[in-house]
Amino acid sequence: SATEEARVCTLIPGDGIGPEISDSVMKIFDAAGAPISWEERNVTAMKGPGGKWMIPIEAQDSVNKNKVGLKGPLGTPIAAGHPSMNLMLRKTFDLYANVRPCVSLEGYKTPYDGVNLVTIRENTEGEYSGIEHAIVDGVVQSIKLITESASRKVAEFAFDYARKNGRETVTVVHKANIMRMTDGLFLRCCRETAEKNRDIKFNEMYLDTVCLNIVQDPSQFDVLVMPNLYGDILSDLCAGLIGGLGVTPSGNIGANGTALFESVHGTAPDIAGKDLANPTALLLSAIMMLRHLGKMNYAGRIEQACFDAIKEKKSRTKDLGGDATCSQFTNEVCRRVKDL
Amino acid sequence: SATEEARVCTLIPGDGIGPEISDSVMKIFDAAGAPISWEERNVTAMKGPGGKWMIPIEAQDSVNKNKVGLKGPLGTPIAAGHPSMNLMLRKTFDLYANVRPCVSLEGYKTPYDGVNLVTIRENTEGEYSGIEHAIVDGVVQSIKLITESASRKVAEFAFDYARKNGRETVTVVHKANIMRMTDGLFLRCCRETAEKNRDIKFNEMYLDTVCLNIVQDPSQFDVLVMPNLYGDILSDLCAGLIGGLGVTPSGNIGANGTALFESVHGTAPDIAGKDLANPTALLLSAIMMLRHLGKMNYAGRIEQACFDAIKEKKSRTKDLGGDATCSQFTNEVCRRVKDL
Ligand SMILES: CC(C)[C@H](C(=O)O)[C@@H](O)C(=O)O
Ligand SMILES: CC(C)[C@H](C(=O)O)[C@@H](O)C(=O)O
Repeated sequence: SATEEARVCTLIPGDGIGPEISDSVMKIFDAAGAPISWEERNVTAMKGPGGKWMIPIEAQDSVNKNKVGLKGPLGTPIAAGHPSMNLMLRKTFDLYANVRPCVSLEGYKTPYDGVNLVTIRENTEGEYSGIEHAIVDGVVQSIKLITESASRKVAEFAFDYARKNGRETVTVVHKANIMRMTDGLFLRCCRETAEKNRDIKFNEMYLDTVCLNIVQDPSQFDVLVMPNLYGDILSDLCAGLIGGLGVTPSGNIGANGTALFESVHGTAPDIAGKDLANPTALLLSAIMMLRHLGKMNYAGRIEQACFDAIKEKKSRTKDLGGDATCSQFTNEVCRRVKDL
Repeated sequence: SATEEARVCTLIPGDGIGPEISDSVMKIFDAAGAPISWEERNVTAMKGPGGKWMIPIEAQDSVNKNKVGLKGPLGTPIAAGHPSMNLMLRKTFDLYANVRPCVSLEGYKTPYDGVNLVTIRENTEGEYSGIEHAIVDGVVQSIKLITESASRKVAEFAFDYARKNGRETVTVVHKANIMRMTDGLFLRCCRETAEKNRDIKFNEMYLDTVCLNIVQDPSQFDVLVMPNLYGDILSDLCAGLIGGLGVTPSGNIGANGTALFESVHGTAPDIAGKDLANPTALLLSAIMMLRHLGKMNYAGRIEQACFDAIKEKKSRTKDLGGDATCSQFTNEVCRRVKDL
């Protein structure tokens, strides 16, 4: 209702196409009357005291205060030692679970129908620990670090997520046949969590087997939970099954309701500023954000308007085989959301 | 010709369906008059002096003498500390390159046409180093170990393979944005090898991007080279694109012509001994073996007979949607190979 008080959320528009797709989302939220007010913050890597790369303080403060935010793509300038700002955000706010729902878009044809799964990725450690050494000349190692506490948190998150979202089965994806200690620990935490959540079915599968089966019949999968790198891989694979990173949302979830929703595609410098980008991934991420805030009705209406617009070939952007501009697609969604 | 001297090759029939699919291959080779004589050796894990698991000596001697072998699936008994015999064979004979061609089967429909790619996987180190530690309670690490020498060997192998097999492009698959030292070293070795092989095109791609793109259009890929785990994942994914592990061959290649060809599927205990298994993966692996030995004509004829048999729905085994038994499929291939 118009009298509902607006919730302040941080908006990190990002680089490249980030600002134009952020504009699109803001317009659509306005058209829907969604009770969100945006606090815009820039995130460009900066060096803090001691020369360490960090997230600008104003952005940190904003997320800490609002707890919830939306971000567009961030580029990683090619500089020795420059970290990915995407990763740094996940670590800075301890956003331990990365959630990527992957659902076939009605009316948009790919080789697969009926994809309806969610990848849940441990988001802070594993192969992304950043700990590496040179042993001797020509011999290097990277350390995959797994902790019981992070594994348990993401496992619990997966079962909670399944329950809250009416899903039936959680499958843990691992290579504990090879990495017996690390994936073994992750697997054990999932098993123990499954024991405490008997209302949700539990499955275990090797990562390679999941890859084999998922391209043969993705509709057999429901909620998948896994260590960091496996999630990076599988979430992109799944995005490919339904139309690519332009149409897949993502949420990074931490403790006490802290969450940052983001589109996972790149900054697309080649089309930046040309009004050609597809805002769908960021819009769907913003819709995840609405649901996270309990604003189910707004989420449902905007989502419906977005899916309806995509169903019609003429309002699709280039990446989906149409020739609508970002603005045209945005206007179409706005028009539809007002009618719902 | 009938007077060609037979080459002795080691045959490790393996467990579960291993013996029946090995029989099938031997029958088909006989029918084709292929100049191979098989030296059968059992591989069941045994404990050597000092209690370490090892490959039985007779099997080791046979492979060392013949240099070339074919193996069926090997089970890994669930026992604490029991290693995978598949992996142990790769390490024991330093089979540093794992080659898995993936080509669409004519007449067998999957969501994809025109898949024609080869994954080449570093086969001895990386995430499969087996080095793991507990740091403190609830904190464990696995070490991904990358050496310049193994990386260079597999990179050189990939370019050689591309040249010998009339392929155009080698793409290195990596996550050097995350694992800067290990994947960085692997990437550097590939780049340097590419410099020396300018007749072959060279490409670099992130693993997640490959997964995204490959399920959208696998026909864009040619030869892919990568660290151990990524190869495990991608080769299964690719197998899924063309019909599964029942139809995809594999070769493990080492120095001085040493090579072990194997089907990558499991032992399928549920159908073992029931004459229901599909021998295609092992047969195609045996055909790779013939090519490795320079016996191109026999390889071509047997391959043709196999593909022709699969083209006809009625001679397909269950996993391919038919209802032929293993023997019926085998007889059909034998009949056809004699006519070629
Ligand atoms: C940008 C990159 C570092 C990141 C990752 O590897 O996690 C991306 O691929 C993702 O999936 O969010
Ligand atoms: C059996 C298993 C240890 C093996 C691996 O992980 O390499 C298999 O999946 C393969 O691809 O050959």
